[in-house]
Amino acid sequence: MAVAVDAMGGDRGPSVLVEGAVAAAREFGIPVVLVGAEDVLAAEVRRHGAGGLPVRIHNATQVVGMDESPADSLRRKKDSSIRVAFDLVRAGEADAVVSAGNSGATLATAMVALGRISGVRPAIATLIPTLKTPSVLIDVGANVDCKPPHLFQFGVMGAVFSREILKKPDPRVGLLSIGEEDTKGNQQVKKAYDLLAASSLNFVGNVEGRDVFGGDVDVVVCDGFVGNICLKLSEGLAESILQMLRTEIGSSVLGRLGYLMARSAFRRFRRRVDYAEYGGAPLLGINGVGLICHGRSGAKAIKNAVRAAHNLVEVRLAQKLAASLDAGGEGLRAAP
Amino acid sequence: MAVAVDAMGGDRGPSVLVEGAVAAAREFGIPVVLVGAEDVLAAEVRRHGAGGLPVRIHNATQVVGMDESPADSLRRKKDSSIRVAFDLVRAGEADAVVSAGNSGATLATAMVALGRISGVRPAIATLIPTLKTPSVLIDVGANVDCKPPHLFQFGVMGAVFSREILKKPDPRVGLLSIGEEDTKGNQQVKKAYDLLAASSLNFVGNVEGRDVFGGDVDVVVCDGFVGNICLKLSEGLAESILQMLRTEIGSSVLGRLGYLMARSAFRRFRRRVDYAEYGGAPLLGINGVGLICHGRSGAKAIKNAVRAAHNLVEVRLAQKLAASLDAGGEGLRAAP
Repeated sequence: MAVAVDAMGGDRGPSVLVEGAVAAAREFGIPVVLVGAEDVLAAEVRRHGAGGLPVRIHNATQVVGMDESPADSLRRKKDSSIRVAFDLVRAGEADAVVSAGNSGATLATAMVALGRISGVRPAIATLIPTLKTPSVLIDVGANVDCKPPHLFQFGVMGAVFSREILKKPDPRVGLLSIGEEDTKGNQQVKKAYDLLAASSLNFVGNVEGRDVFGGDVDVVVCDGFVGNICLKLSEGLAESILQMLRTEIGSSVLGRLGYLMARSAFRRFRRRVDYAEYGGAPLLGINGVGLICHGRSGAKAIKNAVRAAHNLVEVRLAQKLAASLDAGGEGLRAAP
Repeated sequence: MAVAVDAMGGDRGPSVLVEGAVAAAREFGIPVVLVGAEDVLAAEVRRHGAGGLPVRIHNATQVVGMDESPADSLRRKKDSSIRVAFDLVRAGEADAVVSAGNSGATLATAMVALGRISGVRPAIATLIPTLKTPSVLIDVGANVDCKPPHLFQFGVMGAVFSREILKKPDPRVGLLSIGEEDTKGNQQVKKAYDLLAASSLNFVGNVEGRDVFGGDVDVVVCDGFVGNICLKLSEGLAESILQMLRTEIGSSVLGRLGYLMARSAFRRFRRRVDYAEYGGAPLLGINGVGLICHGRSGAKAIKNAVRAAHNLVEVRLAQKLAASLDAGGEGLRAAP
């Protein structure tokens, strides 16, 4: 068991990526393969004192830029750190990939190198904080144009993930729409509603935007366009509220105290499930395990992403997804 | 000039609606026509001491339920308070409608009774709070399935509203998508991008979810499905953050103080543009003026909605929308 880490991607460069991967090897004993420019990585490994740890380096001569077109990178960069990492999984030399690099390229490369579960549209799932336990929002960006059966697949994959990883025995699946009634929504969502309602999933019907953070639904299904907007809107709103608190509370001693307390409470809330804690967003529906990390990920996020990837491999998530999808979601509600 | 108020709709009943309408007549001198059950409204008018004010009652024998299908209500309730209010506008006995009732029915009735601007898909605009001045989000629910030209129309209408009502001389129009580059988005959005970019609008390109509350764009264009989800997601997240602050901050005296200060700052922020302050969401693209209020609207929201509706009539917004749409957005950037 080893996790291949794209050690060149991300906004912050190899140093934090290597630091995080080495920390995962040290703290959790997880073998990692650092993929990227050999000399750069060897120096980083020395700097982080990884002697004696299960850390090895695999050379890759190219790097995909954060804004590079996924299609271009696939065509022109056969030796990129992302590509080589997935090739290691294909060759059986690693079991999962963690990348904080170009997420579009990571997704496209995963599909080319590992392939998708037959008939399935891979999707990116993400954990979102709620007033109760974390929920899963799926898809948050892999599929901007979907058809109803894809939304159904996202429901199945989200439910399997919720059950296997979040340990919810009978995850409640909701369809993101603009009203609770089955007549509400756009054409795509109304058709997906019928598919979900006819399945054996624990489908609770449509959920509205205001329900997402309430925690009464475990899996929120939407297309990747809507999901990505929701994710970024939430990040932006949370940031704006914090900035607004700072401005509005003013500069009195009590005001500053109130702001500091609010900020700290706020950060604890976000920390419950932020990228740094879980590490990344799993790519579900590929023949293998891939974790997409935020470009700004620091060492802690990478460390936790390696652990999360390891966990996905251990519970055989990809195999369970394939089995559930193959059965059209049947059997999902039986005891694990 | 008179504003017809649907005095039967909404979650809170005629009393607060009449109170708000009477307050508008008293404070702003705006003539109002209360539409609904004559005897009920007459009693409310007496209770609120409207003697001598420009308030009259117009009887309507039916009420559309908050969850009733708009199509059913149109077919079966020709004498509903919503329908009669719009018929008064059509007959020239009133100039605008304010309703906190069933918003789908209000929209459908407006289109039937007043008609739409030729070739245009009416849309619901809403003001959203940002770190700077309020922005316009359009559409937030009138059109769940859109085509690219409709998104373009929303951009034109949002820009006219922003210029005429928010007094922004050259409103920046952004298209809600999942990345800034013109290659990002679903098929619908990519085509709408081209239409907006080719127009004479002050189009700033795609904006992401995280940009919505930043205030660097004055008009955010999206389809009604996405917009409605964004609106409700924001409401839900803001509520959740407040609840979370309460939970996380704990019960110490200082903690409670911090919470109370944060809550009050938070409320001031929301108040900048909440429904109660502006009163309602204007329905743009119909041949007339309609304001859709939140079902939970209280007297203050209704009072302000009457003022906002009056303002929309005074600036001849519907006529200016028609002229701008007719010119394909041309001339919008000229000095008002």
